[in-house]
Amino acid sequence: MNPYLLASRESKSTPTIIPVGGCEIGRDFMVIAGPCSVESAEQLFKTAEAVKKAGANFLRGGAFKPRTNPYSFQGLGIEGLKLLAEAREKYALPVVTELLNVEHLEITAHYADIIQIGSRNMQNFELLRAVGKLKKPILLKRGLSARLEEFLSAAEYILSSGNPNVILCERGIRTFETATRNTLDLSIIPLVKELSHLPIIVDPSHASGKASLVKPLSHAAKAVGAHGLIIEVHPNPKEALSDGEQSLDLAQFSELMLSF
Amino acid sequence: MNPYLLASRESKSTPTIIPVGGCEIGRDFMVIAGPCSVESAEQLFKTAEAVKKAGANFLRGGAFKPRTNPYSFQGLGIEGLKLLAEAREKYALPVVTELLNVEHLEITAHYADIIQIGSRNMQNFELLRAVGKLKKPILLKRGLSARLEEFLSAAEYILSSGNPNVILCERGIRTFETATRNTLDLSIIPLVKELSHLPIIVDPSHASGKASLVKPLSHAAKAVGAHGLIIEVHPNPKEALSDGEQSLDLAQFSELMLSF
Amino acid sequence: MNPYLLASRESKSTPTIIPVGGCEIGRDFMVIAGPCSVESAEQLFKTAEAVKKAGANFLRGGAFKPRTNPYSFQGLGIEGLKLLAEAREKYALPVVTELLNVEHLEITAHYADIIQIGSRNMQNFELLRAVGKLKKPILLKRGLSARLEEFLSAAEYILSSGNPNVILCERGIRTFETATRNTLDLSIIPLVKELSHLPIIVDPSHASGKASLVKPLSHAAKAVGAHGLIIEVHPNPKEALSDGEQSLDLAQFSELMLSF
Amino acid sequence: MNPYLLASRESKSTPTIIPVGGCEIGRDFMVIAGPCSVESAEQLFKTAEAVKKAGANFLRGGAFKPRTNPYSFQGLGIEGLKLLAEAREKYALPVVTELLNVEHLEITAHYADIIQIGSRNMQNFELLRAVGKLKKPILLKRGLSARLEEFLSAAEYILSSGNPNVILCERGIRTFETATRNTLDLSIIPLVKELSHLPIIVDPSHASGKASLVKPLSHAAKAVGAHGLIIEVHPNPKEALSDGEQSLDLAQFSELMLSF
Repeated sequence: MNPYLLASRESKSTPTIIPVGGCEIGRDFMVIAGPCSVESAEQLFKTAEAVKKAGANFLRGGAFKPRTNPYSFQGLGIEGLKLLAEAREKYALPVVTELLNVEHLEITAHYADIIQIGSRNMQNFELLRAVGKLKKPILLKRGLSARLEEFLSAAEYILSSGNPNVILCERGIRTFETATRNTLDLSIIPLVKELSHLPIIVDPSHASGKASLVKPLSHAAKAVGAHGLIIEVHPNPKEALSDGEQSLDLAQFSELMLSF
Repeated sequence: MNPYLLASRESKSTPTIIPVGGCEIGRDFMVIAGPCSVESAEQLFKTAEAVKKAGANFLRGGAFKPRTNPYSFQGLGIEGLKLLAEAREKYALPVVTELLNVEHLEITAHYADIIQIGSRNMQNFELLRAVGKLKKPILLKRGLSARLEEFLSAAEYILSSGNPNVILCERGIRTFETATRNTLDLSIIPLVKELSHLPIIVDPSHASGKASLVKPLSHAAKAVGAHGLIIEVHPNPKEALSDGEQSLDLAQFSELMLSF
Repeated sequence: MNPYLLASRESKSTPTIIPVGGCEIGRDFMVIAGPCSVESAEQLFKTAEAVKKAGANFLRGGAFKPRTNPYSFQGLGIEGLKLLAEAREKYALPVVTELLNVEHLEITAHYADIIQIGSRNMQNFELLRAVGKLKKPILLKRGLSARLEEFLSAAEYILSSGNPNVILCERGIRTFETATRNTLDLSIIPLVKELSHLPIIVDPSHASGKASLVKPLSHAAKAVGAHGLIIEVHPNPKEALSDGEQSLDLAQFSELMLSF
Repeated sequence: MNPYLLASRESKSTPTIIPVGGCEIGRDFMVIAGPCSVESAEQLFKTAEAVKKAGANFLRGGAFKPRTNPYSFQGLGIEGLKLLAEAREKYALPVVTELLNVEHLEITAHYADIIQIGSRNMQNFELLRAVGKLKKPILLKRGLSARLEEFLSAAEYILSSGNPNVILCERGIRTFETATRNTLDLSIIPLVKELSHLPIIVDPSHASGKASLVKPLSHAAKAVGAHGLIIEVHPNPKEALSDGEQSLDLAQFSELMLSF
């Protein structure tokens, strides 16, 4: 049996369009922006205000952070979710945030407009099934070493549990190349569009690990046919608690948005 | 801060020895054997009897199966755990089985002697922290694309949560080579032994994906210094519901054990 | 010592511009097009006429073909070079062709306007030094598993032998992903432009191995800042002696050129 | 057509045994040892004397060195070949050395007992065909990113040119893992033995890039069924002009040989 039956063009030939917060994901080219981690009210609100002004459609921010090193900053937790909700009201920006486990499903679904499943959890099948029982849109990031078929099969876990609102996200795969943090695999964008009806966006920040590459890769992502971008932005990247090297500052993000 | 402080030789210079079911893991060379999935009482008991007779120290068997394809056999669930417990009593073989999520932690800990965390969950940090609160030995498999430092950092999540009984398992990494299912990385066995005090075993079945390679790779694993093996065995590999191609039949397993 | 001293921005801050056949490579966005292998006069001339009309700047075609399988078609050899030279006169298209060994250096340099060094020869240091003694422009393709530093160091072999006219070409790297033939690594385009003054173009045909991906990847390559493209075109891809699956037919190429 | 017809078990079911210098390669377990580069008479002779005494069957040493960095030490050239020939007479050790290009074919064949084709030249088809016209044994190293089929197809270039005396060598492949220089792929040893009649040896020095891993990996290579080893040995690894980190000193090599 086709491991991504419901995700395939065979089962649904028209593109899936997901309306969220005034944006039609899969039709409009949309931009999600914000800090890797929510660090404080000041940091979040300053970023939210600036990305809204620059034209972003969604605010991103991590409340619960999956970290390789157990001793690194793990996020503000529920406090972070509440700050995101405040920012949403204040700046009229719907919110995207990552869900790490079933325990936080309800509270995350309460505060977020789009729930992100991160790369490390792309094959956390329990989590996929759990968000498959919601109707809320799910942003599913490709695993570091996931083949295309595995990526679509992970989406299938969500679809077959009852939630048709899946947005895929290419964020770079792990290869031998060390000049970039990961290797952005833009070829799968048109390939996903051939094989599936689901929208797919690109994360040039995690893919490259370098702020200087975000702008050219964003243009490449748009040119290759992606339905949007998710970009890390921080008011002061040098002092970010996570992912500072790949974050744009507020002026760089504004310049990126003007360049489209 | 060293992301694998507690797992390092600096923090503990003597090798960790974990006594389970009459075996001293980290000192004795031990063998875990059994089917990929528990499929029926007959299949499990037949395998258990044979691997015990051949000299295996532990019985493995999956009750909850993480499957890429949502439409593949997902395991017998709790029924599978109970069959494993029955087999343990009947054949005096302590049991190793995989835990997929926190929901099944208590019942799995109740039935299993060693709890396995699979490759896809190597960075499921919630699950790592949860098993870190037990004292039961944890078999932590390396992720498909995990670097050595990330593997040890995943162990650190368990250790730093309070459980010192971690057994590492190398099971092949994902590379460009398609002649084998994964690429078994035996070089990390002596490297782990330099850097860490934790025991490390090898899974030649998942690594190679080919029954004919299991015997030579098992000998290589022993020669390179691994503390043991975990091997898939099935009474009738051609009819296995999962991983048949890489499973030894009962005679092949017996022959393998005699060859050491 | 910096292994790519002469190739670096430190040693030359202004971009290298290479004038060939009316085109300023490194300034103009240029397109090389033609068949993987020269198969016959008819096939080559038909292609040359069409790609010229569609706006290509250069004609590509392999006379000597490096083939993994020793029993596959190995190219027409010198006869192929002569056909390329005829096509150049007939259609006013300068010619790019691959040099496989020092023995054919003189004759290839006689017939070609740009000499290509293929991926498999990226670290054939003797060949690099030999073409380094010419003044003719060299198109150096990235090796299948070459890191960025190794790619630039290969260029350095040519530069340090006396030939400053090197054009780099990203053509996909080898990864675990099997949905495409290789993984096109567009991130290195802006990175090469930061680190080096050399022009860099993109080969979406070899990278993807799929004709349907060539158009979107060509647009992505232009958007990310590449200085040009090299594209496989064949009058009848289904009957091509090599690389038919990734070749555009004449109408597809014409449509691609109109889409810019 | 099978791209490795002549190399396959189908075309020749009995193992190929290659007698050189009193050793039957493919039957005896043999050891090649010596410095990465020939640096001086003193360095070479001291090493040769020690490895002979320790039980090595062949002396290795590079006269022409392929280096990623054009400004690194490139070997002593013909002078190096002559020193190797002297060492052979003095210590009764047949010599293995690398051939980089056709120009040096005759002189290398004159001085060497086994001609090595390095990883970077595994698909230098001209060079493969040229050594295919000799009868001298060829040691063919696997390319950094060569799949098994490509490795055997490279051997086929030599066999189909008329030289049946090919010895394969696994030396590690390029992966995402950075804890070792390459990832030694021991699984292909038994796989090559299933598919082909050619002997295959292992290079644990280049594979791991770390002297401390050479001994355990050597034992693993023997246990997995390899026909021999090629090991870098230097009287003073810390002052080696190349590959010092992975070279054993004379005492370590002697200890390794005693451990078998």
